[in-house]
Amino acid sequence: MENPVLAEVTRGNTVESRHRGAAIVLDADGGVVFSVGDVERPVFPRSAVKAIQGLPLFESGAADRYGLSEPEIALAVSSHSGEPEHAETSLAMLRKAGRDAGCLECGTQWPMGEAAARAMAKAGQEPSALNNNCSGKHAGFVCLACGLDEDPAGYVKAGHAVQQAVRGALEEVTGAAHSSERMGIDGCSIPSYAVPLSALALGFARFGTGHGFGPERAKAAARIRKAVAAHPFMVAGTGRFDTRAMEQLGARLFTKTGAEGVYCGALPELGYGIALKCDDGAGRAAEIAMAALIARFLPMSEAEAQAFAPLRENILKNWNGVEVGRVRAAAF
Amino acid sequence: MENPVLAEVTRGNTVESRHRGAAIVLDADGGVVFSVGDVERPVFPRSAVKAIQGLPLFESGAADRYGLSEPEIALAVSSHSGEPEHAETSLAMLRKAGRDAGCLECGTQWPMGEAAARAMAKAGQEPSALNNNCSGKHAGFVCLACGLDEDPAGYVKAGHAVQQAVRGALEEVTGAAHSSERMGIDGCSIPSYAVPLSALALGFARFGTGHGFGPERAKAAARIRKAVAAHPFMVAGTGRFDTRAMEQLGARLFTKTGAEGVYCGALPELGYGIALKCDDGAGRAAEIAMAALIARFLPMSEAEAQAFAPLRENILKNWNGVEVGRVRAAAF
Repeated sequence: MENPVLAEVTRGNTVESRHRGAAIVLDADGGVVFSVGDVERPVFPRSAVKAIQGLPLFESGAADRYGLSEPEIALAVSSHSGEPEHAETSLAMLRKAGRDAGCLECGTQWPMGEAAARAMAKAGQEPSALNNNCSGKHAGFVCLACGLDEDPAGYVKAGHAVQQAVRGALEEVTGAAHSSERMGIDGCSIPSYAVPLSALALGFARFGTGHGFGPERAKAAARIRKAVAAHPFMVAGTGRFDTRAMEQLGARLFTKTGAEGVYCGALPELGYGIALKCDDGAGRAAEIAMAALIARFLPMSEAEAQAFAPLRENILKNWNGVEVGRVRAAAF
Repeated sequence: MENPVLAEVTRGNTVESRHRGAAIVLDADGGVVFSVGDVERPVFPRSAVKAIQGLPLFESGAADRYGLSEPEIALAVSSHSGEPEHAETSLAMLRKAGRDAGCLECGTQWPMGEAAARAMAKAGQEPSALNNNCSGKHAGFVCLACGLDEDPAGYVKAGHAVQQAVRGALEEVTGAAHSSERMGIDGCSIPSYAVPLSALALGFARFGTGHGFGPERAKAAARIRKAVAAHPFMVAGTGRFDTRAMEQLGARLFTKTGAEGVYCGALPELGYGIALKCDDGAGRAAEIAMAALIARFLPMSEAEAQAFAPLRENILKNWNGVEVGRVRAAAF
């Protein structure tokens, strides 16, 4: 049984490319609101679960011990574009724990945003680990290690107290076993565990509501949601989907992209969690599918719907700025 | 009936992403050597047919009138990375026809190669149409227009003599109707016509052998193949698949990438033409599928096979240079 087409790419009057995948929307009791495709096949959530990976930073008390600000909290669960404000905020987090960029184990990456990368090159600068799209999460990991009175060195390894805490949170929140047979290494060197989309959707339904969480975890989730809603630039960057979506809809929405076509999110007022993956790993299709699910379930005023419309269909322009096609949702 | 998986992406022991598509290998009489998936559905070949689009440049006499060199001929059928040598060669072609970069209608593009783009930014330079990956083809179009004693202005439009000649060559070589209902606008603003993969494979079997061509067309195809084999850097760029493949195998091979997961090629000594498309438009999968077909059909010595092996499996490394997964062929 093959997964259905979630999004298609047109050129002229012809469909040029097709993206298959699976998607599920659950309520916080695990009730299925919507489901297409095989939502039980294990997928690597990659960066889409950063908000869940960030819970121990709060539950351990480290976030308060180091007085992390709201923009820093948003950055701790981000896949940022490596713009100057992102890199500076990462460094500020590390300094609060008495550390610096030398502690980061995510590797050096030119800013994900091409314009930011070229601006950096133009200024004669070279990137550091602070520009890595995961540097905020890693700065949070360093804070967590210090908060646990653990040596941060090796915090990316599966056996380190930081990754043990992160894995524990993921297992408890999603209800899925995170097994070493289903472990891969992520782009930033930490473990990623393949789990079903259904478990990810349940995890985000809980994350969005606190339903089924103890009081500390519920409070931690609420702080993260509030911080990201207030500072959506920090969770992604200029022109990025998550930033644009939450700039418009604020705390009514939580969305987070992951590499290889994964998207997770929550619609807190409805109690819904969302998880999807495009089989082929295409981010362009995952975004459009996520937008379609948001538009389908989240009540919007006419003005809100109009403002949100550009996120639902990606108009493709060529090098002369001429519209040549679109990425549009299918199967929704 | 869904297309099979042509390539899959692993992370750890798990398949993370899957790329479906169709592929066909034909001989120059149209005999089917190999076929998977739906090879009759129309697909936009995009830049994969630049070598066929380049035939009128020779058949018109323009290439000789302006004394185009072998590197310039290779660039005329390229999707280059916008490296300095590519941009300079485009300009040299235009100057031979008494024109300059102001004639190019492909639009401005930062070099496709990220390192080349950053080097340009670092030098305080801004890109021009010469850096557009299609500038060589467009310089060829300007030469063709001048050779036909036509005003180059508007040479990207379907009604211009240049595009009429190009469409005529495409129809004759592939044997497929190129209809305006199946027309889209390409990234560089010229028309692209969706045709079946089977027609593209037939076209490249003919292109690789001259079989079924008149003497002028056969000579033009041979000149293009020879030029690209001698200057594979010109047809793509540093580290690119087409450049690496033809650096290794020279005139035994002709391959050309197209946007949205298309690949076309020829194995002249066998008389085979190849065409494939990944449904989702993924270039990473199209390359691996192309490499698998080459390895399956082209006889190689042990040393050749060993040198070609890195093109058959793409090892994915993270920001710390650690291997995290692979892109590998399936269905071959």
